[in-house]
Amino acid sequence: MNNFTFHNPVRVYFGDDKLQELPDLVKEFGSKVLLVYGKSSIKRMGLYDKVVDLLQSNNIDIVELSGIDPNPRIESVREGGELCKKHDIDLVLAVGGGSVIDAAKGIASAALYDGDPWDFYSYKVQSEGALPIGTILTLSATGSEMNRGSVVTNLKTKQKHGWGSPYTYPKFSILDPRNTFTVNQHQTGCGIVDSLTHVYEFYFSKNDNYLNNRICEAIMKTVIHYGPQAIDNPENYEARANLMFGSTLALNGLTGFSNTWDGFNHTTEHVLSAYYDIAHADGLAILGPHWMNYILDESNVQKFKEFAINVWEVEDRGTDMEIAKRGIQAVFDFYQSIHMPTQLSNVNIDDKEFDEIASYATRYGESVGRFKELSKDDVLQILINAK
Amino acid sequence: MNNFTFHNPVRVYFGDDKLQELPDLVKEFGSKVLLVYGKSSIKRMGLYDKVVDLLQSNNIDIVELSGIDPNPRIESVREGGELCKKHDIDLVLAVGGGSVIDAAKGIASAALYDGDPWDFYSYKVQSEGALPIGTILTLSATGSEMNRGSVVTNLKTKQKHGWGSPYTYPKFSILDPRNTFTVNQHQTGCGIVDSLTHVYEFYFSKNDNYLNNRICEAIMKTVIHYGPQAIDNPENYEARANLMFGSTLALNGLTGFSNTWDGFNHTTEHVLSAYYDIAHADGLAILGPHWMNYILDESNVQKFKEFAINVWEVEDRGTDMEIAKRGIQAVFDFYQSIHMPTQLSNVNIDDKEFDEIASYATRYGESVGRFKELSKDDVLQILINAK
Repeated sequence: MNNFTFHNPVRVYFGDDKLQELPDLVKEFGSKVLLVYGKSSIKRMGLYDKVVDLLQSNNIDIVELSGIDPNPRIESVREGGELCKKHDIDLVLAVGGGSVIDAAKGIASAALYDGDPWDFYSYKVQSEGALPIGTILTLSATGSEMNRGSVVTNLKTKQKHGWGSPYTYPKFSILDPRNTFTVNQHQTGCGIVDSLTHVYEFYFSKNDNYLNNRICEAIMKTVIHYGPQAIDNPENYEARANLMFGSTLALNGLTGFSNTWDGFNHTTEHVLSAYYDIAHADGLAILGPHWMNYILDESNVQKFKEFAINVWEVEDRGTDMEIAKRGIQAVFDFYQSIHMPTQLSNVNIDDKEFDEIASYATRYGESVGRFKELSKDDVLQILINAK
Repeated sequence: MNNFTFHNPVRVYFGDDKLQELPDLVKEFGSKVLLVYGKSSIKRMGLYDKVVDLLQSNNIDIVELSGIDPNPRIESVREGGELCKKHDIDLVLAVGGGSVIDAAKGIASAALYDGDPWDFYSYKVQSEGALPIGTILTLSATGSEMNRGSVVTNLKTKQKHGWGSPYTYPKFSILDPRNTFTVNQHQTGCGIVDSLTHVYEFYFSKNDNYLNNRICEAIMKTVIHYGPQAIDNPENYEARANLMFGSTLALNGLTGFSNTWDGFNHTTEHVLSAYYDIAHADGLAILGPHWMNYILDESNVQKFKEFAINVWEVEDRGTDMEIAKRGIQAVFDFYQSIHMPTQLSNVNIDDKEFDEIASYATRYGESVGRFKELSKDDVLQILINAK
């Protein structure tokens, strides 16, 4: 087992009765809230009214910042930070999915910083504090509700950067599976792929650890088991609940305490979606199984066999290589079964920019990926295979 | 999935280089430490000297409280509390296994309380604070290093009670697997049984949850995989490391976020070891598989089949009942293979007190256990079966 530190102070309130805790939770920190949310979905589903009623009837003042984009912009972070300063905000409350929560983390940090918050995301300065953050989750996907990470996009510099600090863990996160009942089929599929990718980017690890692997498998099996049920019946509480806490555990430290992050999928996908306006998880669904097919060889066939049998319940029959390949085929089949793309042509991407994308994906060194280090030519070949 | 709250703020520092962090960790809270430990084992293994050197060379003052018993006594808690008050202690540092850590939790709470700390354990008053607690773990078993629970014995009232408060989570826990290299065969076996029992008391749950079950299985598989390796080769780092973090995760909230605790094994064992001076885990090893055999019936055979196949890798062949029984037999075989007792006669207990033990185990109501509610007569029969 590798050495590590593990710390996750987020208080999770999970279940269909937990929104009621909101006023008391907020009051631990004060009485002035910046309510951060996206477009109209929380209004359509009635959550906005419930939250506002609960806060107002408990004498909690609300300042609003709406319109957070799916890829949250640094401009929103700046604007939110200014609002916090101007209105003397006590707590930043994110109501939404990962993008809204990510933005809230930047905003809460910007509130206590005199400079431009992009300084954090460009790693110029480390934050020295943040306002308390609370979240009400409406999308099972990124895990941001129980970690400190925040990904924000700067369109001017064409950068999408991840950052976090010890102060950006939410103080509390309210997870009511019913708040995901209205998530549509494609968004549900995206959440499933995002969660699975978070886990297998840790599962495929050099010097992998037994306990870490088994926990990864536990979460992947859950997502695979309940994903299709949530797609078929969006109001299946048990399916939504398992997906919700599964996606939370997928990126709260538990899947990577000893195993190391591979990074190929997320790094390359960030480039892909910077060139083409595709959903992050569409890119992940396309890259994932093609990446597996490409890197599978005699040196790692045991790991892929383990993946096939333990996660995908592939029958233990035939050669190791055959079993491993059937496992990867199961990933293709699963993604297709939940209506996710597995080829670039499915999202109308052709090979024009492949060379540039492969170059950019490997810009930080000679290679990308840790489980198997991939050169620019390797990335190019994966893109060609995924055409 | 049941509704729940999940919160675990403990910072875990895991690995063979983490003791070095101790001075900085202590200094976050002050410069006066109450060093709490048991008998001579931490001196024999050289850990005492290392800890004292590290603290002293960093100008941290040490007051000592040694001699904590394997079942920590309320007298030690009282004495520790007085020492904290007298010496104006900033942090209580437990160096040892679960007993020492449990005592430290009581001591840290007693330090800020004017009355008798047994008031906490007898549920007369709730604590309103505690000094910060740090731990250096030397035994993989109870999970106390990453939870708030504390079990303390009052010999005068013949009570062994568990208690905890929001203030008794350790601020930090240092887990170096090398500090368990000198744990002897029997103590290692006890830790394995204790961890497994912690998990299966949540695994066997009415309204069990899929994700919760899979995580329980992940931890049990790890303990079963590495337990015998640690028994055979006490200095096998990987085995000790997996057992260590496995036992930590077994009782840090992760195994019971949705599933509910059965309680038969721990409740009955506490009575058993109150009547006879046997190790807690010896009692658990005897009761566990006999309890399983007794409660197995058509209504829960699927759960036992799942346990057999997913945890014990029993072949999926024959009737469900046959598979379930082979799973329980695997528990017997495993415990015997790691030299743990599976019959009361192995620890020289006869049937003289069976009636009284069965009465006492069911004293809080008509029954004990939640997965299957067991009457006094049921408990008696389990004891007879385990003779």
